[in-house]
Amino acid sequence: MSRPRALSGFPEWLPAAQVVEQLVTDSLRATFELHGFAPLRTRAVEPVPVLLGKGETDKEIYLLHRLQADEGVAPGDGAALGLHFDLTVPLARYVLENAGHLAFPYRRYQVQAVWRGERPQEGRYREFVQADIDIVGDGSLPFHHEVEVALVAAEALSSLPLPPIRMRVNNRKVAEGFYLGLGVLDSGAVLRVMDKLDKIGPAQVTTLLVEDLGMSSAQADACVVFAGVHGQPGTGPGPVLDDVAALGVQHPLLTEGLDELARVVEAAEQAVPGVLVPDLSIARGLDYYTGTVFETHLVGHEGLGSICSGGRYDELARDGERSFPGVGISVGVTRLVGAVVGRNLMAADRSVPTAVLVAVVDEQQRRESDSVATALRRRGICTEVSPSDAKLGKQIRYADRRGIPFVWFPDPSGQDQVKDIRSGDQRPAERDTWTPPPADRAPTLHSTRPKESS
Amino acid sequence: MSRPRALSGFPEWLPAAQVVEQLVTDSLRATFELHGFAPLRTRAVEPVPVLLGKGETDKEIYLLHRLQADEGVAPGDGAALGLHFDLTVPLARYVLENAGHLAFPYRRYQVQAVWRGERPQEGRYREFVQADIDIVGDGSLPFHHEVEVALVAAEALSSLPLPPIRMRVNNRKVAEGFYLGLGVLDSGAVLRVMDKLDKIGPAQVTTLLVEDLGMSSAQADACVVFAGVHGQPGTGPGPVLDDVAALGVQHPLLTEGLDELARVVEAAEQAVPGVLVPDLSIARGLDYYTGTVFETHLVGHEGLGSICSGGRYDELARDGERSFPGVGISVGVTRLVGAVVGRNLMAADRSVPTAVLVAVVDEQQRRESDSVATALRRRGICTEVSPSDAKLGKQIRYADRRGIPFVWFPDPSGQDQVKDIRSGDQRPAERDTWTPPPADRAPTLHSTRPKESS
Repeated sequence: MSRPRALSGFPEWLPAAQVVEQLVTDSLRATFELHGFAPLRTRAVEPVPVLLGKGETDKEIYLLHRLQADEGVAPGDGAALGLHFDLTVPLARYVLENAGHLAFPYRRYQVQAVWRGERPQEGRYREFVQADIDIVGDGSLPFHHEVEVALVAAEALSSLPLPPIRMRVNNRKVAEGFYLGLGVLDSGAVLRVMDKLDKIGPAQVTTLLVEDLGMSSAQADACVVFAGVHGQPGTGPGPVLDDVAALGVQHPLLTEGLDELARVVEAAEQAVPGVLVPDLSIARGLDYYTGTVFETHLVGHEGLGSICSGGRYDELARDGERSFPGVGISVGVTRLVGAVVGRNLMAADRSVPTAVLVAVVDEQQRRESDSVATALRRRGICTEVSPSDAKLGKQIRYADRRGIPFVWFPDPSGQDQVKDIRSGDQRPAERDTWTPPPADRAPTLHSTRPKESS
Repeated sequence: MSRPRALSGFPEWLPAAQVVEQLVTDSLRATFELHGFAPLRTRAVEPVPVLLGKGETDKEIYLLHRLQADEGVAPGDGAALGLHFDLTVPLARYVLENAGHLAFPYRRYQVQAVWRGERPQEGRYREFVQADIDIVGDGSLPFHHEVEVALVAAEALSSLPLPPIRMRVNNRKVAEGFYLGLGVLDSGAVLRVMDKLDKIGPAQVTTLLVEDLGMSSAQADACVVFAGVHGQPGTGPGPVLDDVAALGVQHPLLTEGLDELARVVEAAEQAVPGVLVPDLSIARGLDYYTGTVFETHLVGHEGLGSICSGGRYDELARDGERSFPGVGISVGVTRLVGAVVGRNLMAADRSVPTAVLVAVVDEQQRRESDSVATALRRRGICTEVSPSDAKLGKQIRYADRRGIPFVWFPDPSGQDQVKDIRSGDQRPAERDTWTPPPADRAPTLHSTRPKESS
């Protein structure tokens, strides 16, 4: 094999970044499990009709075919297969397939790769890992799960040493209720125009609303002002409720949506202050979501796109009359890791799990070093034995290159010593009792941002 | 979406089995990290020439193409891409691609899905998860790593509540040295005949050795006897060494191979007694491996095939004059989980991480239940809040269906109670101090085999 090249859009990490990915997913998983989400792994492939079933035809799907397919099709082959482009479509299919065997509400987390044949650029990949949680009900799903999922997402991201994050939250009922309150019946048409606000600006949007949809200019102005309403970190839902009230539009659905939005914001303000802000411009494919929606940015790195998005969808899955409404979030693990590593925002303090390297004085005494390692591992201390009996300076460099904090020098007469190679501190140690400080037991993540000047 | 069907060869688990898979991979990973292996995730796709580079053309590879490829090929598209069929080829490619940035010997573990377009049957899947460890050297790799990897594999499998396992180990040098000692120069030709032993039997093998390869019948008989030499659990390498010596063949390579084999067996006998046996019939694609080779079966379930295989390969990767020899093992996670679940050999005591369900007395008091949950989670106790204020009996059934051991009854006046729903034991509890017994904190695996009658 000649020296291979990286494939654009299919990121892989060197060991230092790989540990960051591992610690990020471990941390997300720990939060998800703390909240009672159970693991799920679905197959990577789905029949193409399942992948296309939700109208997501803009997704670039990778289809599979077998290299040796001319040898005949194996039994069970039916529709063409493609790689999943998210973890929501497989979840919907899994729930429908196994509904009779699942206990509802079904709470699962899922950390897996997904594939999209998109044009690669920063933050956009062809293969990337997502970490999702969803709660799926059978027939109905109480609103409080929307609050819950937002809190879990905020808690999961706040547990990482990230730059400040901003979760912007909205409720699909707010905009629909507002347009209905204005007397507009086709709220979908208004939404499609309002979606262009960022691209074409308020003046052109106003023109479209008036000329194409027949709104009065007062109505159109109200829509533009409404779409700009958003809160500030730490102030709760009050200012947004006031701003909407000032527009003088009333409708029961608007009231319901604002009430739900306020409940999510208030609960988050209590649990993770300053993270979540109400923002009525958040749309996130409103055809799809039916209640709370949100997306999340790293403050100062908004160009990356959202690192955690989700919401409530009432039509996740349907089997005849039986429907399975859900609410979920998806953390873009690869996008997040690519950003924090690429922009040097976060790092791990070592690239290996190893806390102790046991030195080998000479190859004849490797067994002695092995038995030190066995004693340490028995007490859960991650330990390697030096690969060779090179000069001790070289063995210490082996540890140093990997960030292994301690080197152990075994002594058959029982005078073992352990050295903290960061401080140079070396002292006698008992192989059956010595333990590293808790912070050194496993690699940990830390922020690499310079402290902000105050 | 109408009710979907399972896809043959692409297994998915219901929650009870999914937890088993998760706990198995967590346990394997813990052992690997205890021995200083660092995580790696490689992309799922490789250029087809990389996949075919090792002559593994009998593997049924899945090729990818983009559904919307007619819209033009994105920049960076080159050779056709296929899904990897193992984790060794991607490792070799990753090492070559990043050799300048890796610290050698490079020790990594990797738990990922792989894909093969094979005909599905029990123990054979089209998508399955493997857990691999490998140690890769730069230019050379000391023999002691072969011992090490065998021990880690045995320790990793012995940490699981499996039926008894048998690791059968051999060394590629033993057979080659034996044939050279017999005076046969083309040991590859002998190996190809000997590989048919299981299929065609000793009489026909003897005929082929004599008629096709020109051996004397004494030589051919020696080969057949030699291939049948194997040890017994717990006896160490002695009997095998005696059996080979009795055949009266001598060669330096045979001596070296037997010495290496003995060292692996002795070390394993000390670390995990009774698990590893020498067996000269183990071949495992001898063209590929160059030293220690082994495979592992669940005793009584040999028909499943090997659940953990590996060995030493000196030509894992080569870049001009620079070679990267390695030694590794691969645990077939999906095969193992499918077997223990399908044959009811092992189970988890619950299907969710949750240790405590906090009851909701009525919806108005959900906030009280939420604050109990927050207090418990703050101390690392996995907790859910009841999805509804249904009758308490129904809330207890919610916990029972999932195996959640404790239900908490909050009381705003501070008289909280917690019930162990297995024993029915209910008592007062403080939300800021109560902890579940250690065994109930997280789901655990246990054997479901009936005790053997003695």
